[in-house]
Amino acid sequence: MALDPAVAAVRLGVRAALADLEAGATVLVACSGGADSLALAAATVFEARARELRVVGVTVDHGLQEGSHQQAERVVAQLELLGADETATARVHVEAADLGPEAAAREARYAVLGQMAESFSAAAVLLGHTRDDQAETVLLGLARGSGGRSIAGMRRAYDLYRRPLLDVTRAQTRAACEAEGLQPWDDPHNSDPGYARVRVRERVLPVLETELGPGVGAALARTADLLREDMEFLDALTDEAWTGSLEVAVLAASPRPIRTRLIRRAALEAGVPSDRLTATHIAEIEALVTQWRGQVGVDVPGSIRVVRREGAIEFVSCA
Amino acid sequence: MALDPAVAAVRLGVRAALADLEAGATVLVACSGGADSLALAAATVFEARARELRVVGVTVDHGLQEGSHQQAERVVAQLELLGADETATARVHVEAADLGPEAAAREARYAVLGQMAESFSAAAVLLGHTRDDQAETVLLGLARGSGGRSIAGMRRAYDLYRRPLLDVTRAQTRAACEAEGLQPWDDPHNSDPGYARVRVRERVLPVLETELGPGVGAALARTADLLREDMEFLDALTDEAWTGSLEVAVLAASPRPIRTRLIRRAALEAGVPSDRLTATHIAEIEALVTQWRGQVGVDVPGSIRVVRREGAIEFVSCA
Repeated sequence: MALDPAVAAVRLGVRAALADLEAGATVLVACSGGADSLALAAATVFEARARELRVVGVTVDHGLQEGSHQQAERVVAQLELLGADETATARVHVEAADLGPEAAAREARYAVLGQMAESFSAAAVLLGHTRDDQAETVLLGLARGSGGRSIAGMRRAYDLYRRPLLDVTRAQTRAACEAEGLQPWDDPHNSDPGYARVRVRERVLPVLETELGPGVGAALARTADLLREDMEFLDALTDEAWTGSLEVAVLAASPRPIRTRLIRRAALEAGVPSDRLTATHIAEIEALVTQWRGQVGVDVPGSIRVVRREGAIEFVSCA
Repeated sequence: MALDPAVAAVRLGVRAALADLEAGATVLVACSGGADSLALAAATVFEARARELRVVGVTVDHGLQEGSHQQAERVVAQLELLGADETATARVHVEAADLGPEAAAREARYAVLGQMAESFSAAAVLLGHTRDDQAETVLLGLARGSGGRSIAGMRRAYDLYRRPLLDVTRAQTRAACEAEGLQPWDDPHNSDPGYARVRVRERVLPVLETELGPGVGAALARTADLLREDMEFLDALTDEAWTGSLEVAVLAASPRPIRTRLIRRAALEAGVPSDRLTATHIAEIEALVTQWRGQVGVDVPGSIRVVRREGAIEFVSCA
């Protein structure tokens, strides 16, 4: 029997993501039970066997929906059936105080995955984001209007995390599950139009494809890849220019893309919340260097005032 | 009587665009008779008076539609009524051999505007593109998937050209015309769904605004501004690294964003048509440096083969 092309596509992505791991290493695969991560888990178990890797299947119970506990148990049973060497459930408590519910759930999820990776001494943590997720991320970032960083999408790899399916479509993961007789779970959150991401998926992308051609999803993902390289290079140049403080002379001598990144970095280190720091704030802080006329200072989120004092830009807490 | 806010917004943009011109200088303003460029022309005449600039109103007759000649005469009459110091019509012949009809008309228009700027010794040529045009340009570029360059949108200024209305919406230019009693012409091309730009305007952007909020147009334009600075900086670094040829050693030592830009630049100089040069071609050429295993070469559009020979990457015409 010929290998199903969707299964092959998923395995190809996983194979590349595991290529640099040594025999005996442990791989964590995060699985919600949805088609994306179920196809990922199946391919990981398959690819790990030939490379003698140990696979730990992990599911996170956010406790946000009724029956989430049973759903987690069901995923663990699926991971065992697939042949994961070990399985684990992590129950997290989501605090949505400062963040939206989506961001809060994401933060809690990454925190617990990090803990699990440590306790299993994992060499890699695989995440099931697909090319469709990437396209949605680009469009959501575009709507925020905060520049290249927000449309550069998700990274293929960072720290222990790897995203083997960024070249695979969601439809391919569904087809892969179908071909392997796996029954994915449809998270009701994934069709709740209260989430911007769901509206992008169900209402925006289909219109883009109708009006501009069926290749739009791939084009968005490709743009993210190209942009990410540019943004990472500019970040690396910023690292080189970073002295730990914001001296007016250094800022004045830096080209604008580096200057604004230095300011952003200093602001984040001073405790300005990243999701509330806008391009306008950064431009106002920049004006303390490039259009200095004795301004009192600039108030930024986090109860912080930014002032120019003795040849440097300083962030003063007003809390 | 208070100044209409839309008229004020248009004039503000024009004032900034004219700020560096000296008294006596000539400004060309390109006007199709549409609301955008009509509002632009009116504001230019107004602002030019205080600064003692000479305004030449120019309209381009593409000859693509029946009655285009009469329309051009109508625009010239409007420009005279507005108080332009001089007016001119340029008739262009559009060759759509290699380009699509939109691109061909655009090229012909810029060519003739350049000639007119020279013959009037103009110090600046003003174009009526609005924030909406910028948002459309970003979305069209995004759908092409060719990275940051294609979503960085239109420049505010280059060579003699200036776009004073990139912070003004199309609705504001309509309101400005209305407030000043000007009757704009509705170009039937602007509602022809055969054009991708028209579909973006009429079908894509409204859905984005409904699903992601009314600020999407502004967010797209802001993203373009931020990205353009980053892209121009990377281009400037590429200029510094450019030696006139592609030496393997230089390419290998360059960070990827610069390496791919050096390759793109060499390809364009060798005659590869820019609209057919894809990121895939560039990656294949790059592999002649980074994954060299004796490849025969890479065939690229324009009947050109790219080969590695004696420590350099060369473009060989096969025509």
